Amino acid sequence: MRLALLGGTGDFGEGLALRFARDTDHEILIGSRDPERAREAVSAYEEIIEAHGASGSLKGFTNEMVADRADIAVLAIPPYYVGDVVDSIADRLDDDTILLSPAVGMKRDETGMHYNAPPAGSTTELVANRAPDEVPVVGTYHNLPANTLADLETDINFDTPVVGDKDAVQTVISLTNEVAGLRGLAAGPLANAREVESLTPLVINTTKYNSELDEAGVKWV
Amino acid sequence: MRLALLGGTGDFGEGLALRFARDTDHEILIGSRDPERAREAVSAYEEIIEAHGASGSLKGFTNEMVADRADIAVLAIPPYYVGDVVDSIADRLDDDTILLSPAVGMKRDETGMHYNAPPAGSTTELVANRAPDEVPVVGTYHNLPANTLADLETDINFDTPVVGDKDAVQTVISLTNEVAGLRGLAAGPLANAREVESLTPLVINTTKYNSELDEAGVKWV
Repeated sequence: MRLALLGGTGDFGEGLALRFARDTDHEILIGSRDPERAREAVSAYEEIIEAHGASGSLKGFTNEMVADRADIAVLAIPPYYVGDVVDSIADRLDDDTILLSPAVGMKRDETGMHYNAPPAGSTTELVANRAPDEVPVVGTYHNLPANTLADLETDINFDTPVVGDKDAVQTVISLTNEVAGLRGLAAGPLANAREVESLTPLVINTTKYNSELDEAGVKWV
Repeated sequence: MRLALLGGTGDFGEGLALRFARDTDHEILIGSRDPERAREAVSAYEEIIEAHGASGSLKGFTNEMVADRADIAVLAIPPYYVGDVVDSIADRLDDDTILLSPAVGMKRDETGMHYNAPPAGSTTELVANRAPDEVPVVGTYHNLPANTLADLETDINFDTPVVGDKDAVQTVISLTNEVAGLRGLAAGPLANAREVESLTPLVINTTKYNSELDEAGVKWV
């Protein structure tokens, strides 16, 4: 399978790239607006993975090119311009490419982080509204801490809820469960995305108010 | 300490009563609109606790009477009339009684449960708005599954986020951590209650779509 990480040069893209490249046999495509930056990121990630005694298949291209080739395209992009990126890749997508949305709209104030959904109801539904109708959209990975993912020294044990069309959700859960210490949990259709995305500010707030929780994740028990 | 469970004859009140009575030395006051029902519940709970080789100190009264005597008063009451109950006990409360709100406004549709906050922003803030100004209000226990709590055969291992005034939050966390397998996690002031309450429909939805998750809770890891 080809897994594309659009915005794959950012912190969250790095974390996903390293875990998927180390733990699975899938081809990882790193996308960026600037293909040179994508290729530099690939070199850096390969070095880290090799230092951990593993090897992965990574390649770097533009966001458009990785979307074109992907079986699953992850929008590792800040929520305030994820809609524009979906528009820019729309003609590269079809019903064979799952579009995966991990972004969460939030606003920070003095007490902590607060969920701040777009008018579509959630960022996942915004992505679904902007993508061509035939493209299956899935929302997940919102609650995974980027820095912990990117630190391959750390063994993880995190759950992540997954919403979207049933078949696409099952494909994404199977892929997710190939990464050591990750478990995807079906959470229903896109209409349930709001509750899924709201978990992220809660995890950030509990981390802020509990010094013993550093870059925490959540596990259903 | 005196822990009052208003609405303590319901499923959630039963779960809290059994765990606190079995695992702590505190006095548990069961409140109900009908004091006779409260006394019947106390008899039933005592029987269960004794069947598990423990004993607890439980007493049953009206909601008003247990609020009057409580150090911590838990509003184990459905969200749509929790405000009326707060009004009815307002003259029994003071700055020595922590009012604890575990209720979550939700609406169900064909896809699952959805967070449905009152105009105050959250049920916890609704309670704070209706209570006398000097009464410390804390929001927690929203995400604990009632049936699992009430089944003393089941060892639990759940976290629950806690919001409110800092001192009251610490008091509630200390109390919570006395119950085997429960851990309270500070999540900031009342302004963060919305994110805390939103966890409940998410947990219900993941339970609905994952047959292996029966009456699940959540753990920060």
